[in-house]
Amino acid sequence: MNYKAVINVLAKTMIIEAFFMFLSMCVGFYYGEQTFISFLIPIAILLAIGVPFAFLKYNSNNIRAKEGFVIVALVWIILSLFASFPFFIGGHIPNFFNAFFEATSGLTTTGATILNDIEALPKSILFWRSFTHWIGGMGVLVFILALIPSDNGAMHIFKAESPGPSVGKFVSKLKHTARILYSIYIALTILEIIALLIAGMGLYDSVVHSLATAGTGGFSVKQAGISYYNSVAIEVIITLFMFIFGVNFNVFYLILCGQVVKAIKSEEFITYLIVLLFAIIAIAINLLSVYNDFWTALRYSSFQVVSISSTTGFATADFNTWPVFSQIIIIFLMIMGACGGSTGGGVKVSRMLILGKSSYANFKNLTSPRQVLTIRLENEKLSNEIVNNVKNYIIFWAVILFIVTLMISIDSFYGADFFTHFSASLTCIGNVGPGFNGVGPMSNFANYSWFSKLILSFEMLIGRLEIFPMFILFSPRVWKGK
Amino acid sequence: MNYKAVINVLAKTMIIEAFFMFLSMCVGFYYGEQTFISFLIPIAILLAIGVPFAFLKYNSNNIRAKEGFVIVALVWIILSLFASFPFFIGGHIPNFFNAFFEATSGLTTTGATILNDIEALPKSILFWRSFTHWIGGMGVLVFILALIPSDNGAMHIFKAESPGPSVGKFVSKLKHTARILYSIYIALTILEIIALLIAGMGLYDSVVHSLATAGTGGFSVKQAGISYYNSVAIEVIITLFMFIFGVNFNVFYLILCGQVVKAIKSEEFITYLIVLLFAIIAIAINLLSVYNDFWTALRYSSFQVVSISSTTGFATADFNTWPVFSQIIIIFLMIMGACGGSTGGGVKVSRMLILGKSSYANFKNLTSPRQVLTIRLENEKLSNEIVNNVKNYIIFWAVILFIVTLMISIDSFYGADFFTHFSASLTCIGNVGPGFNGVGPMSNFANYSWFSKLILSFEMLIGRLEIFPMFILFSPRVWKGK
Repeated sequence: MNYKAVINVLAKTMIIEAFFMFLSMCVGFYYGEQTFISFLIPIAILLAIGVPFAFLKYNSNNIRAKEGFVIVALVWIILSLFASFPFFIGGHIPNFFNAFFEATSGLTTTGATILNDIEALPKSILFWRSFTHWIGGMGVLVFILALIPSDNGAMHIFKAESPGPSVGKFVSKLKHTARILYSIYIALTILEIIALLIAGMGLYDSVVHSLATAGTGGFSVKQAGISYYNSVAIEVIITLFMFIFGVNFNVFYLILCGQVVKAIKSEEFITYLIVLLFAIIAIAINLLSVYNDFWTALRYSSFQVVSISSTTGFATADFNTWPVFSQIIIIFLMIMGACGGSTGGGVKVSRMLILGKSSYANFKNLTSPRQVLTIRLENEKLSNEIVNNVKNYIIFWAVILFIVTLMISIDSFYGADFFTHFSASLTCIGNVGPGFNGVGPMSNFANYSWFSKLILSFEMLIGRLEIFPMFILFSPRVWKGK
Repeated sequence: MNYKAVINVLAKTMIIEAFFMFLSMCVGFYYGEQTFISFLIPIAILLAIGVPFAFLKYNSNNIRAKEGFVIVALVWIILSLFASFPFFIGGHIPNFFNAFFEATSGLTTTGATILNDIEALPKSILFWRSFTHWIGGMGVLVFILALIPSDNGAMHIFKAESPGPSVGKFVSKLKHTARILYSIYIALTILEIIALLIAGMGLYDSVVHSLATAGTGGFSVKQAGISYYNSVAIEVIITLFMFIFGVNFNVFYLILCGQVVKAIKSEEFITYLIVLLFAIIAIAINLLSVYNDFWTALRYSSFQVVSISSTTGFATADFNTWPVFSQIIIIFLMIMGACGGSTGGGVKVSRMLILGKSSYANFKNLTSPRQVLTIRLENEKLSNEIVNNVKNYIIFWAVILFIVTLMISIDSFYGADFFTHFSASLTCIGNVGPGFNGVGPMSNFANYSWFSKLILSFEMLIGRLEIFPMFILFSPRVWKGK
């Protein structure tokens, strides 16, 4: 294990987090809030530890896949820990496990909350809460790669942090890739802020909701969520941007390069679009029994479908009270999630696509065993290894989903049935946000015990980092030997 | 397609079914019931069609895997169709879809029922209902193979009907294998009848419950199920035999051959045993909050755990009212099911074992990619093909489970929430019997629409035949060309 490299990268991310916290502290100054100390203490600790070790020399040729996984896992645990300090210090969220849950939920862009009265919190604390979505969406390590000269080992870190089965193909230079990703990310976020301002949302609300949309997080600053504004224009804008941030960033890069046709022809993009359209229409028809006219049904269906599939988790309706048929489609969307290479969570559209294609090929193989079938995605032939990795990933995913459901099911509170625990586990591993019944869009996770909150926090991290980094971190084999 | 072979085998199974129905008709005579016509009509039709075509000459060298799948799928659909006639004719179950559901549930050894008042039915009709479990448990085609000289193509039929990833290894001659299987099956059934008689159950009740246990079906002749008898001795005997019929029949064959140590050392057997013991103890501890003392909790836990994991589905307690933790363990047991090569359903212990071993190997591979890992089961090295087939099987299984859940969720009746539809789909594909909430152990499937009942009937067949035969039957590619 290349300890020096691990420590150096950790130190750098701590400095970055201190910088992000400083911005939130400025928001507090602007609104004249008494939250100075809540930010100053974690900033001081982060810098005190981060600055000395950031200058540690290390052999960058020695960062292998193993180190990549370990760095990413450690960075995310430490970031989540410190991100909880502004909530905890000053007593905005007095219980430590609640604060850690809220911070992890923010950074992993889950958006599940333990808050019963969101509007009671200071603006700067809520800004930090939404800002964690934006930080976690694209990833802190990608941010570092964009700033500092990349070295030989950086690829492994980049691969371990970015979602989806493949990444970073479009530009050979890693540093350029990271910079392009962040530029698109910032530009789209600003575009959404402007659009929301035009639609009549205030500046503060526009900024925090745009940060939450960009990271596909879902924290709102209103207890009633987006339904607070009761504005079709705002709902349409947020729906559009939730969709955009659920798309693979490759698509935007291709559009920037003028290859619009190639971008729109992306198989993953088309699949994502078709699935969403089908889901919106199916649910809208099913909702005719709940809402009186088709347009109202379509309005609620489209917002919820895009919100869940992009794994943002904003809500304008309580899908808990919807017919079971609609609920099952929503569960499917929670499982599928957004496109690989987006800020969204879930299993990812590309993995589902590979799974579907491979299953179809296997089925065809039953009736004509002699035919050799190749699976293609985006016009490239997929190796058996990639297909197997996708299947293994989904199996691991399902096993974790099941084990966490079992572990948290020991908790019993009002409304905590099987569907509550199952959807809580599903929404956390998929980084979605709301679940069903006891953890539905109009409820929250406050009723879980500290033990379940800790388990769910780690499940969110496992989901955000796509399983393997967290497991490798706790595997004794990795720490043995050199 | 070798049509002559398909028709010939179909004709033979129809004759066998007529014979089994004749036995049930005799039960009616014995009890002096007016059910003569209910059996005579289907028997007459079965023989009228079956006898002429049973003499059709065909080329047995031309039965390939394709024909094997098609034969098995067609046989099971036709058997289920005719098995519903005794219920339907005479109006014992006046609705055709209900009768077909009940017959399919019987033959596939599911044990899910649409009857609201079981005890109102004549004894001979209930005998036929339980007898379908016994017929379906070991399989009708295996029965034919035991009777008539087996030919070159028989292996494909045998493979397509028998549950589990591998079959028929222990005796090279197929006919012998089929005979040994049926001899063990009959002997164990008789043993259970005797044991239940000694425990004080009447002859009729002993016979029908033994038939239902042997097939791991779960139909009872009492509305209250096994709890009607309120006898620890009867519960212990049935628990023991449910466990026995959930074990791979290879184990009993090895014991018959005197290789007791080798039999008990079977990895699948040991895994099955350990999982059951863990589940029994975990649920018993969890149930301390429901029942007053540990022994009562253990009594209800052990019966329900063995009943569900063997996919029998008898009930002595309403696990619907148990804590969620226990319910989730029961869901896991429903998914896992019994051992391959038993009469039980579910994914099968051997497949879960292969999945677990392969996942562990994949995980180890992440941290030491250069190491080549081989997976072994029962001391034999598993090829990549077998491991991939198991993964594909489980993926297909999960997809069907999901699609059926979605399709039946359009139905709404009192208590029909997500858990109802999900568990209905799960219990049908796994051939278990009871589900949760609206289809719990104290409820039944009567409330579903005719459309959902038809879907669920086919899902039971898909589960019993391990997915592929039914899909190949409806694949146009199979019917094209020679």
